[in-house]
Amino acid sequence: MPHLDPDLVRRVVRDALAEDGAFYDVTTLATVPAEQRGRGVFLAKGDGVLAGLPLAEAAFAAVDPWIRLTPLLADGTKLERGAHIASVEGALAGILSAERVALNFLQRLSGVATLTRQLVDAVEGLDVRIVDTRKTTPGLRALERYAVQVGGGHNHRFNLEDGVLIKDNHLAAGRARGQSLAQVVAAARAGVPHTLRIEVEVTSYAEAQEAVEAGADIILLDNMDPAEMARCVQMIGGRALTEASGGVTLANVRAIAESGVDIISSGALTHSAPALDISLEVETA
Amino acid sequence: MPHLDPDLVRRVVRDALAEDGAFYDVTTLATVPAEQRGRGVFLAKGDGVLAGLPLAEAAFAAVDPWIRLTPLLADGTKLERGAHIASVEGALAGILSAERVALNFLQRLSGVATLTRQLVDAVEGLDVRIVDTRKTTPGLRALERYAVQVGGGHNHRFNLEDGVLIKDNHLAAGRARGQSLAQVVAAARAGVPHTLRIEVEVTSYAEAQEAVEAGADIILLDNMDPAEMARCVQMIGGRALTEASGGVTLANVRAIAESGVDIISSGALTHSAPALDISLEVETA
Amino acid sequence: MPHLDPDLVRRVVRDALAEDGAFYDVTTLATVPAEQRGRGVFLAKGDGVLAGLPLAEAAFAAVDPWIRLTPLLADGTKLERGAHIASVEGALAGILSAERVALNFLQRLSGVATLTRQLVDAVEGLDVRIVDTRKTTPGLRALERYAVQVGGGHNHRFNLEDGVLIKDNHLAAGRARGQSLAQVVAAARAGVPHTLRIEVEVTSYAEAQEAVEAGADIILLDNMDPAEMARCVQMIGGRALTEASGGVTLANVRAIAESGVDIISSGALTHSAPALDISLEVETA
Amino acid sequence: MPHLDPDLVRRVVRDALAEDGAFYDVTTLATVPAEQRGRGVFLAKGDGVLAGLPLAEAAFAAVDPWIRLTPLLADGTKLERGAHIASVEGALAGILSAERVALNFLQRLSGVATLTRQLVDAVEGLDVRIVDTRKTTPGLRALERYAVQVGGGHNHRFNLEDGVLIKDNHLAAGRARGQSLAQVVAAARAGVPHTLRIEVEVTSYAEAQEAVEAGADIILLDNMDPAEMARCVQMIGGRALTEASGGVTLANVRAIAESGVDIISSGALTHSAPALDISLEVETA
Amino acid sequence: MPHLDPDLVRRVVRDALAEDGAFYDVTTLATVPAEQRGRGVFLAKGDGVLAGLPLAEAAFAAVDPWIRLTPLLADGTKLERGAHIASVEGALAGILSAERVALNFLQRLSGVATLTRQLVDAVEGLDVRIVDTRKTTPGLRALERYAVQVGGGHNHRFNLEDGVLIKDNHLAAGRARGQSLAQVVAAARAGVPHTLRIEVEVTSYAEAQEAVEAGADIILLDNMDPAEMARCVQMIGGRALTEASGGVTLANVRAIAESGVDIISSGALTHSAPALDISLEVETA
Amino acid sequence: MPHLDPDLVRRVVRDALAEDGAFYDVTTLATVPAEQRGRGVFLAKGDGVLAGLPLAEAAFAAVDPWIRLTPLLADGTKLERGAHIASVEGALAGILSAERVALNFLQRLSGVATLTRQLVDAVEGLDVRIVDTRKTTPGLRALERYAVQVGGGHNHRFNLEDGVLIKDNHLAAGRARGQSLAQVVAAARAGVPHTLRIEVEVTSYAEAQEAVEAGADIILLDNMDPAEMARCVQMIGGRALTEASGGVTLANVRAIAESGVDIISSGALTHSAPALDISLEVETA
Repeated sequence: MPHLDPDLVRRVVRDALAEDGAFYDVTTLATVPAEQRGRGVFLAKGDGVLAGLPLAEAAFAAVDPWIRLTPLLADGTKLERGAHIASVEGALAGILSAERVALNFLQRLSGVATLTRQLVDAVEGLDVRIVDTRKTTPGLRALERYAVQVGGGHNHRFNLEDGVLIKDNHLAAGRARGQSLAQVVAAARAGVPHTLRIEVEVTSYAEAQEAVEAGADIILLDNMDPAEMARCVQMIGGRALTEASGGVTLANVRAIAESGVDIISSGALTHSAPALDISLEVETA
Repeated sequence: MPHLDPDLVRRVVRDALAEDGAFYDVTTLATVPAEQRGRGVFLAKGDGVLAGLPLAEAAFAAVDPWIRLTPLLADGTKLERGAHIASVEGALAGILSAERVALNFLQRLSGVATLTRQLVDAVEGLDVRIVDTRKTTPGLRALERYAVQVGGGHNHRFNLEDGVLIKDNHLAAGRARGQSLAQVVAAARAGVPHTLRIEVEVTSYAEAQEAVEAGADIILLDNMDPAEMARCVQMIGGRALTEASGGVTLANVRAIAESGVDIISSGALTHSAPALDISLEVETA
Repeated sequence: MPHLDPDLVRRVVRDALAEDGAFYDVTTLATVPAEQRGRGVFLAKGDGVLAGLPLAEAAFAAVDPWIRLTPLLADGTKLERGAHIASVEGALAGILSAERVALNFLQRLSGVATLTRQLVDAVEGLDVRIVDTRKTTPGLRALERYAVQVGGGHNHRFNLEDGVLIKDNHLAAGRARGQSLAQVVAAARAGVPHTLRIEVEVTSYAEAQEAVEAGADIILLDNMDPAEMARCVQMIGGRALTEASGGVTLANVRAIAESGVDIISSGALTHSAPALDISLEVETA
Repeated sequence: MPHLDPDLVRRVVRDALAEDGAFYDVTTLATVPAEQRGRGVFLAKGDGVLAGLPLAEAAFAAVDPWIRLTPLLADGTKLERGAHIASVEGALAGILSAERVALNFLQRLSGVATLTRQLVDAVEGLDVRIVDTRKTTPGLRALERYAVQVGGGHNHRFNLEDGVLIKDNHLAAGRARGQSLAQVVAAARAGVPHTLRIEVEVTSYAEAQEAVEAGADIILLDNMDPAEMARCVQMIGGRALTEASGGVTLANVRAIAESGVDIISSGALTHSAPALDISLEVETA
Repeated sequence: MPHLDPDLVRRVVRDALAEDGAFYDVTTLATVPAEQRGRGVFLAKGDGVLAGLPLAEAAFAAVDPWIRLTPLLADGTKLERGAHIASVEGALAGILSAERVALNFLQRLSGVATLTRQLVDAVEGLDVRIVDTRKTTPGLRALERYAVQVGGGHNHRFNLEDGVLIKDNHLAAGRARGQSLAQVVAAARAGVPHTLRIEVEVTSYAEAQEAVEAGADIILLDNMDPAEMARCVQMIGGRALTEASGGVTLANVRAIAESGVDIISSGALTHSAPALDISLEVETA
Repeated sequence: MPHLDPDLVRRVVRDALAEDGAFYDVTTLATVPAEQRGRGVFLAKGDGVLAGLPLAEAAFAAVDPWIRLTPLLADGTKLERGAHIASVEGALAGILSAERVALNFLQRLSGVATLTRQLVDAVEGLDVRIVDTRKTTPGLRALERYAVQVGGGHNHRFNLEDGVLIKDNHLAAGRARGQSLAQVVAAARAGVPHTLRIEVEVTSYAEAQEAVEAGADIILLDNMDPAEMARCVQMIGGRALTEASGGVTLANVRAIAESGVDIISSGALTHSAPALDISLEVETA
């Protein structure tokens, strides 16, 4: 099961509740007595993949440790409209004050997991990874990385510090100083920990050839059509991993995968996944 | 011009850069010498409204205070595809390390401003406010509130602490304890600062009547069709402000506005605005 | 019962203990063995209203989670000299190390609650709220807001972000730009969330008239004598709430209230309430 | 001149401004344009000693680095009613948003300095220090320590970590374990850094004798009348410093000082100093 | 038993785990299932004094609150090679992820305790304290202060704020302004809380004489040979405490102590103590 | 030149100064007037490699932004005893208050760089990297990683999150569940980003063979003698990188390198490098 650091969850949820004023919800404080109890059920209002229950649970716990969220389904479950996701029970005031933050996380992360799962399902049977990118929501990358895994995807490097990707601008910078692609690759190799692979972004067959001969461990084929990708994959012949990137959609992902690439990365997984509609139906006692 | 606290900008940008490992970008450190200079231009790749330049500027300044971003357009400008938004100049390494974070903010906030502007334009000539909701990205509410203003919209209460909204669940909680809507409104009035208006969410004409008679300052007409809204507005007759909410789209917003409501709130402004495509074209020296 | 965010309590108490070096109390560490137990009773040394027990409880818990504070009275209770407020029992070392911080909070907040209660009692039978201001102790506003409620008072806006108050300087700034009071009120109305009332500070009958005609929701009558206030209240005739401010004392508060104003605000509640004398009598085992 | 860490000033002022919502002052944002300029003068509305100008300066700088505060007098100056303390000039919006926080610090710290100076002046010509205690405002101890110095006083230990004071409860704890006062003093001596003096609180002549014979470096004479203090001082004969504590007032401080004690400590300096009335008179351009 | 603030322990351990990426240990997450259990024993691989068990315990608890560390020996115990220090049991994944941080603290602090104990043992029977200095690891001073106590040593002032030490440069600064040593001592006396002793660093017999006559409470004899120290101690004759400093080694510490000084301070305790070799032997279930 | 994030430097230095009480240095505040100026020179008292000047510079700047440190040599320079490293000039008080923290960083980091350089020089002419480990000082890993680079070394993975190392315990855990080494490697490959190499720790020739056949990218030869390493390297034949670890000393590092391994890692670089002796000689004006 994908991993979420519980402490990170607590911290990000607490910050979101503070941003939402949930620790001093004037309406609820004035209209709902502390002793009134309530019960709610999270319902799917659309089809998708569930992700984010630990955040919902943490939201209620942060406003009132005695509120109990009981998962009826687990993160990763395929939801159909109407599915009962979890129930929550305890002091009604706390339930109402934390509801919005719980839903904001659930809907967003389930949206990411849902889109990921659609892409993963679309390439079923092919030996390819669907991975995310750095086009994530500022502040929420670790959560979105988790949602991608929940949807059956894999992660790319987490950030600029823990992975190497020589992009067009790095190559252009080298050329401006008279360096060949091979020299830039060698500089990267010399400068980074030996535990990291060297990935190079290329935009043409010729450049792909140059990169693989320079010893790149991974070749990122940027914005090529599937046919050209296939030619590159064949030429590379297993000497490097291949990653496809740029303009990946549900419509074209299988064609891209059939080019034989090892990895397909999609920024849309995190910057454009529509939220999954989920609601909390509350009953007051 | 809408206001952004510069210190908040610095903090949120710095956190985003840290999350992205931008202060130790292994690829750039290994392949781009500190003294190499570069220049880039932000280009619109679609039509929309610009929002977020102060964040882009702060991103470069945080990695290298000598990098200079020069705005060519201001937040709030309507962009056409191809528009030159801003130029950035300085050490190439810093430009490359901060690029992604700058774009992540620009694209997201411009997306919010663009969608807001579309709704605002759709109700042109009518005396109605387009406002946001609490369905924002956790951690980014203040920025999204700003983007809504940049797009010509207004803000709803910022959070649970600084505004009163008696929702169905608060009313149901009261009913469960034998309280009428009027009693719940009175409890809210008694319990909150006199500086806050009392807003009540209603779902029917009858309930709207009850709310206005209870002295509510604002009546939120939830998920009604425009015709029913118009009846409510007429019945209320200026005794309270009226707000429409639920299922607002570009297609129906004008019809809703023509019902005579004072405010239209839309969660989609912040939870479903597609990112505006913006790129940074870099030239290395 | 007034609400205090437990997490805020823990944080502010922990900071106060750190400031006081209570986590490394050299005298107690050197002279009191960890296993020695003690017992203490908080005693009122004057008459007043109790406020702040949750902070005292949190202070002991922060230095030693096994120390048990047992409230004998609740916040809001009227104390007479000699009253036993709470007992505390556990490791003596922790009791001694946390004592000062517990007392510093209890004495200060009980002082605020006591003064508030005196003003509230002085206007008994009249339909008027006693409210606080922004003249609070830096860092302790949320606690002092709580103490005012404990004493029977209400709160004004919490801060500049969540309430509107157009003061003399805002009006003067408008006049300097050729704007009338009505224009300034309109600008405020246009620029702030619809959930906030517009309050205007006035210093004369004429200005009050101007403000109410400009549609102000609340008129702050600043530094008027009760007779003039009464004339203003009559003229306003329920078209706006009225708030009295400036030089409120125990001696004049009832006269002010009898002018018919809805709200009386007093900075003295928080900037000049004398601490209530409370001591901790310790017995060692 | 007493020392204030500039970074602490910035931090505490920034926190106070955030608490006050000064970075998003809705009234001012809506009614005062960014380009309108203003000018203000801080005026003393009572007699006293000025303290806290660096905090006022930091408050304006935090909301707008271009606002310029020009001190007309320095911290420590004796003020008479009507004195012009400082002028402030720049964007009016920022001046209005920071005004309250600036005043809250100035009034409180000047209050502490004023009361301290009164006690110091009352013992003029005698060789005695007026010192503060740990009965300070939570979160503001370093500022209040500064204000005491500004008023001509000295500081006691800052907190439990950096000074030794064996109080009645420590002695009682020792007695409960069969330890004499001398044994408790010896335990303290053995357990704390050699850089700290050992102070012992006593309540009688006999106990003072016991303490000095036990080698205490400082004897705290608690709640004695001046005559008994004088007897103790004579008996001690310079073998230890002597500190008077308990019930110190302007009325009795000289009598206490004439007993010959070296130090007089007063909790009232920080827990009961009335705020000095200071206002900011603003002119708009 | 020496005291460690449990909250400080939690904080410093959590920071160390975050620095080590222990909350997202990619290797362990990918290869060890959450339900697999393990057991480990901490073994001494050399002779020394144990210090730091609370930090090891906190490290495992921070990654998984259900992992149980059972001390088999207590901090302060003299270890022989092969000694079983503690066992740890629970989810294997957490044990592996926290292992390195636990060991990094244990080895370093046991190293400090071990070296301290060697110096303390070397002066056995003499009335002298072995104390630390400010030459500690940035960020870890409170832990190293603890380890020194665990090894039988005492602490010097914790930092510049809580102790007075007039060093050669302070004296030189005074001389440059025409002040004598006595005048510098007097200035210090006048400027610091009366709870602090005044310590003066001297480098010659003459200067020691000057310092004691100026009323210094402690004389730091810097870099003298034992014979000269003995002369100084005799001259001082109990009028001040004496501290030896500079070049203290296991070889010369007893000779230094026999000079009669009260305190011997050693920077090497914290800047040069070799880590004690400790390992964790894990068995998987 | 190795990279240090300036913001990290500021933060860690500020924390160290706060820990040392440098912002309220009672001795210096009492004895050195603010206007007295001073000048100091950092001198090497031993041979080594300089590292840490940016931290020294930041230390002075943090206490007084007008103090100017002028580097006379750069980080990475080989120092001989007596070398003048840098001069510092400005207010004497600030120089004295920041001196210890500046030295603590300089001495420690120069120690790491010095030991690294010794190992690097010892393998001169051979194609091998000297790299660090995770046995670093808690809180200072990024600084020590920098010092290793300054000394001519390279870095291993920074932490558990950004590199894969399957250790004996991971393999044992797999075996306990019936998994072969190849299966554990496959699980790691499947679970981590494709940007990371898979490194496997082995303790025998047979295990090395198994690892390379399982497709490991890097083989860590743990605690083997050089001859066995050479056999492993030959058998691996370039199919994987090889890393030697365990018991690396100046005496044996060349022999190890001559076995043909690509990388030699040494925990001693960071856990046992003796501090380089550096002093600050101050002249007062």
